[in-house]
Amino acid sequence: MSNSVPPSRKPASLDALSALVAEDLNAVNQTILDRMHSPVALIPQLAGHLISAGGKRLRPMLTLAAAKLCEHTGMRHVKLAACVEFIHTATLLHDDVVDESTLRRGLASANAVWGNKASVLVGDFLFSRSFELMVEDGSVKVLGILSRASSIIAEGEVLQLITANDIETTEAAYQEVICAKTAALFAAACKIGAVVADRSDAEEAALDAYGLNLGIAFQLIDDVLDYSAKQEKLGKSIGDDFREGKITLPVILAIARGSDEEKAFWKRTLEDLDQAEDGADLRRAQELMEQHHAIADSIARAREFGDLAKTALDIFPDSIARQALIDIVDFCIERAW
Amino acid sequence: MSNSVPPSRKPASLDALSALVAEDLNAVNQTILDRMHSPVALIPQLAGHLISAGGKRLRPMLTLAAAKLCEHTGMRHVKLAACVEFIHTATLLHDDVVDESTLRRGLASANAVWGNKASVLVGDFLFSRSFELMVEDGSVKVLGILSRASSIIAEGEVLQLITANDIETTEAAYQEVICAKTAALFAAACKIGAVVADRSDAEEAALDAYGLNLGIAFQLIDDVLDYSAKQEKLGKSIGDDFREGKITLPVILAIARGSDEEKAFWKRTLEDLDQAEDGADLRRAQELMEQHHAIADSIARAREFGDLAKTALDIFPDSIARQALIDIVDFCIERAW
Repeated sequence: MSNSVPPSRKPASLDALSALVAEDLNAVNQTILDRMHSPVALIPQLAGHLISAGGKRLRPMLTLAAAKLCEHTGMRHVKLAACVEFIHTATLLHDDVVDESTLRRGLASANAVWGNKASVLVGDFLFSRSFELMVEDGSVKVLGILSRASSIIAEGEVLQLITANDIETTEAAYQEVICAKTAALFAAACKIGAVVADRSDAEEAALDAYGLNLGIAFQLIDDVLDYSAKQEKLGKSIGDDFREGKITLPVILAIARGSDEEKAFWKRTLEDLDQAEDGADLRRAQELMEQHHAIADSIARAREFGDLAKTALDIFPDSIARQALIDIVDFCIERAW
Repeated sequence: MSNSVPPSRKPASLDALSALVAEDLNAVNQTILDRMHSPVALIPQLAGHLISAGGKRLRPMLTLAAAKLCEHTGMRHVKLAACVEFIHTATLLHDDVVDESTLRRGLASANAVWGNKASVLVGDFLFSRSFELMVEDGSVKVLGILSRASSIIAEGEVLQLITANDIETTEAAYQEVICAKTAALFAAACKIGAVVADRSDAEEAALDAYGLNLGIAFQLIDDVLDYSAKQEKLGKSIGDDFREGKITLPVILAIARGSDEEKAFWKRTLEDLDQAEDGADLRRAQELMEQHHAIADSIARAREFGDLAKTALDIFPDSIARQALIDIVDFCIERAW
């Protein structure tokens, strides 16, 4: 499978989705600004640094688009989309502490500016505030979906911590990590769009499956980008996963297809974290991935999950919202080139 | 006001409370063990290290006793008491990361054993799991009380971070910190005892006020103990607050009553964190507190809040539960000698 853009089609973008939910997204942004407020000024300051740093708002947009797909006519989806973004922001703040990242969305990460302590605590605040907003919405069902997703995210993060620096990590374990740490929130974000519109269990399940498979594809591409993206384009440092010894699919494939000498290289760099400071080891890792088609095959895997996501929407009749959700899948995958 | 035990009365203990809630507390402990489970083995391992380390379970006992006081006959209070303990445990895990503590309840702290990363993430898990349990209970009112308390706790922790290393911190700012970081959860733990029993707003408010004032007294004494407890008795390191430059009431009183030379001492040790490694500065801090009656007056302040807590229960007729709740107040204060 080639990883170049089919020439007959213009590159996928978020434009259709953005147009569809523009008005609602403004309301979400306003809700986020209003509700990240606290008399403790450091909280909106730190949270705002991250929230205003030009994130795509992909997850709240999914909630908005799913609600549109389900022809929801009220405004509950706006507040719940803000909840989803708060949970996501809280996990980013804690992730950056755990990963000791210094860059996020092209800016200094919050922990780099304000320290780990403040990032942990402001993450806790946003997380709590998210539940306060859900309580205002009043749906115990939504509270159940998002609290379950939050537990699963934390489990996934811990599992990732355990599998890091272990080159024996299986593809199945990797799959479990990305389902939990990333796809669970995508799934929940989509599913609550059906819940607010009071749709059938089958439609809830379809949006859940769409979000889950999209989330898996999204994370696969994220893990590819960590070895292939231009830093200025991605707004995050390239090679972070390598430096931390995270075991992602491109690594797993390259190891499985590598010689004993190559396995010794991966062991030294990812398990022992003994890496050349001039970037030569990162370049060698990229070369090995290229040689073993590890990047192309990871993208192909992402495409497979992307197709599953699209198919999950078959239950819904064709509509602008459905097409926008289908387009997001291509957008998430085409970030890779 | 003297800080010795009145000779006519035996020392306060948790015995009456423990006897009152013994059966329910067993059920709470079982719920905690069952529900901190995760297929990711590190989670129950790390959480269990802290949860089994002999904490007093004071906060869940408050929920149980408050429910008894309100003659609740069901079992909802058991699950909700476990929620309270999960929230408390999550904040302890994050606190120890933020404070860089190495000792907790007489054992190595979780972050000292498993590292900061795991402690942050397992804290997130317990926090999410707590909300999952509340969702199972199904009361949006309880979810509102505990999500609000959680936000306030995080705000209080951030405020504490800001006021640390600032010897100009006022008593009012200190009061705000301890209300938020400690007393808010005591208040919520007590209030939900009235909520499950479907009691009047006045009774809810009374238990809220009882918990809030008890929590303030508890934290005042905790801050006193950091300068006066025997390490082996308290199970935590003495002088932690001093080493971190936390501004607590004993410090605020000693600074306010000190000479310019003493203020320079406090500035050097608490703002600049320039402290003698042989413990001589901690000993001098303790001497200055003694000299200026800062410890005795902090205990006196705790007693005042303790009295407010007791008075808040006047709305309830006399009962074994009410007496047990009154006795907790004395127990929390008498820890100080």
